[in-house]
Amino acid sequence: MRRGVNVAVGGATGAVGTEMLRVLEERRFPVKGLRVLASSRSAGRRLAYNGSAHKVEELHGRAFDGIDIALFSAGAGRSQAFAPEAVKRGAIVVDNSSAFRMSAGVPLIIPEVNPGALSRHQGLIANPNCSTIVMLVALAPLHREARLRRIIVSTYQSVSGAGAKAMYQLYDETRRALRQFQVSRLKFLVNPKLETRNPKLETVLPKQIAFNVIPQVDVFLENRFTKEEMKMVNETRKILEAPRLPVSATCVRVPVFLAHSEAVWIETERPLSVERARMLLQRAPGVRLVDDPSGGAYPMPLDAGGRDEVLVGRVRRDDSVPHGLALWVSGDNLRKGAATNAIQIAELLIK
Amino acid sequence: MRRGVNVAVGGATGAVGTEMLRVLEERRFPVKGLRVLASSRSAGRRLAYNGSAHKVEELHGRAFDGIDIALFSAGAGRSQAFAPEAVKRGAIVVDNSSAFRMSAGVPLIIPEVNPGALSRHQGLIANPNCSTIVMLVALAPLHREARLRRIIVSTYQSVSGAGAKAMYQLYDETRRALRQFQVSRLKFLVNPKLETRNPKLETVLPKQIAFNVIPQVDVFLENRFTKEEMKMVNETRKILEAPRLPVSATCVRVPVFLAHSEAVWIETERPLSVERARMLLQRAPGVRLVDDPSGGAYPMPLDAGGRDEVLVGRVRRDDSVPHGLALWVSGDNLRKGAATNAIQIAELLIK
Repeated sequence: MRRGVNVAVGGATGAVGTEMLRVLEERRFPVKGLRVLASSRSAGRRLAYNGSAHKVEELHGRAFDGIDIALFSAGAGRSQAFAPEAVKRGAIVVDNSSAFRMSAGVPLIIPEVNPGALSRHQGLIANPNCSTIVMLVALAPLHREARLRRIIVSTYQSVSGAGAKAMYQLYDETRRALRQFQVSRLKFLVNPKLETRNPKLETVLPKQIAFNVIPQVDVFLENRFTKEEMKMVNETRKILEAPRLPVSATCVRVPVFLAHSEAVWIETERPLSVERARMLLQRAPGVRLVDDPSGGAYPMPLDAGGRDEVLVGRVRRDDSVPHGLALWVSGDNLRKGAATNAIQIAELLIK
Repeated sequence: MRRGVNVAVGGATGAVGTEMLRVLEERRFPVKGLRVLASSRSAGRRLAYNGSAHKVEELHGRAFDGIDIALFSAGAGRSQAFAPEAVKRGAIVVDNSSAFRMSAGVPLIIPEVNPGALSRHQGLIANPNCSTIVMLVALAPLHREARLRRIIVSTYQSVSGAGAKAMYQLYDETRRALRQFQVSRLKFLVNPKLETRNPKLETVLPKQIAFNVIPQVDVFLENRFTKEEMKMVNETRKILEAPRLPVSATCVRVPVFLAHSEAVWIETERPLSVERARMLLQRAPGVRLVDDPSGGAYPMPLDAGGRDEVLVGRVRRDDSVPHGLALWVSGDNLRKGAATNAIQIAELLIK
């Protein structure tokens, strides 16, 4: 396929879809033909790619005729409906939704972590959850060296993980909350809880996010964890091929537009010094070690946004357990957490 | 002292000092005389207490003559300089700074957790760090029942923990970042990193906090943990009288004005079911159980601000370890995390 690939992007107008077009362009993916697909609402709009406008077509089965690689990021429902259809018509699908991630026979791939599993695909490859990708890019080199025995993680997730509407929600709420301060002349003690939501706005996050944190990402399950938290558990086990690896997550939304951060504690089977861990991270593909805390260098979402590397820092010995390490990571959830990872998978496919 | 107590508040114009005056008033603390003290910069200002204005005097040794109880929240340096002076002049000092917390002979008190230790005081009592208080109010009832074996905690700390200037920094940066959006017409992908700081403003947080998170609270130590993180470790051990209890913390500043939140994982010596833990928390003094996640009820800083109870929720089994539980707490760092706790100690003293 080296001479040119016919690519379709499903969900091209969304937060991740937009980023997919940008990343295809940046990485000079050998696109021969491009079809941009979205819901009927967006059909007819034009999207720029490589300097020319592409008309958005409605997502339907026939749209995949003649397509070599289809990148899906249109939600689990649409993936369920259209991805098998695309495969039937001869496309290889890289699906960013959660629809098929845990299905047997569907490889769940992070190119820096488990590229070998890709060869087992049957037309459909799943892109992991953004929080899982950001964490595992950092943990994989440590796992290879010393084998993980337990992972504890709490997340600081940006609103872009919930899509473009959530970004607008943060913007709108923040603007309204600031107006409240001006009325009160920035009273010394403020807690700007908005009385009402903006009735003109479709809010997608379950609570006010401006100047708040929400310990809920996705819906709650029977075991009192959220779906997002269990994605981190189950996808990690599948990707690392460690079906019983103990993992526990608390996923939290914070008032940040772009990039997810995570506080991670690991225990390893074999001893792993801080120095050795830092050296492994320094060399690891997809990782940028930002770890000079006294010099003011540590990962932050403002620095991770717009980059493809996962920033890793604050690597330190956790003395509260044998063979314990703590670290802190930030990664762009729309790029490495979604679009870039999917396109890296596509690059492996055409190699 | 029941008929009336002469009270001095050191650092009365700061974020915590202001709250101390408010809490003394709200709780009808039997104040006979009140002296409000601050640095020479603030001397001469007037502060309202119980409907009358009190002139701020400069903090110096003689200001404590005739004082029964002195509440200090003027920073560790000033506590070091003036608290022993105040004790010498006959006052009992409740100190909110970190100056004496780990000193032998200085009780470190959370009234709901270890009131018994108060009787060993020699004139000076220390108020724990805000993050420690918020965590231990929630964990103490579980520790009493099943004995803690390990604590892992990551924090989501509001800027008010760094004082009034940090609150203004968040306000100012947010306003400037929003202006940037208006210029760019809210470009779909935003990452509003400010090019410059406001030169008119003394910024106290080490990095931009608006639309960002900063994995640094207080300074870094030799072991690569921050001072704030080690306060959580060492103070917890002292308060629970468990000198070797394994505790590991990652402390993070988030763009929230008021109230600290924490993701906490515990392991206990004895088994403790989720149901039993919830029952213990339901009854625990100082705790408000907010734990109906599917119904949308969980702790958030916007709800914890302005209250004295620590909100506790998302209580769930952590299957990644034997006898593991995970929970999520939010508490007002200026009230229960500082002012209210100090005044509760003063109430115990005059009982």
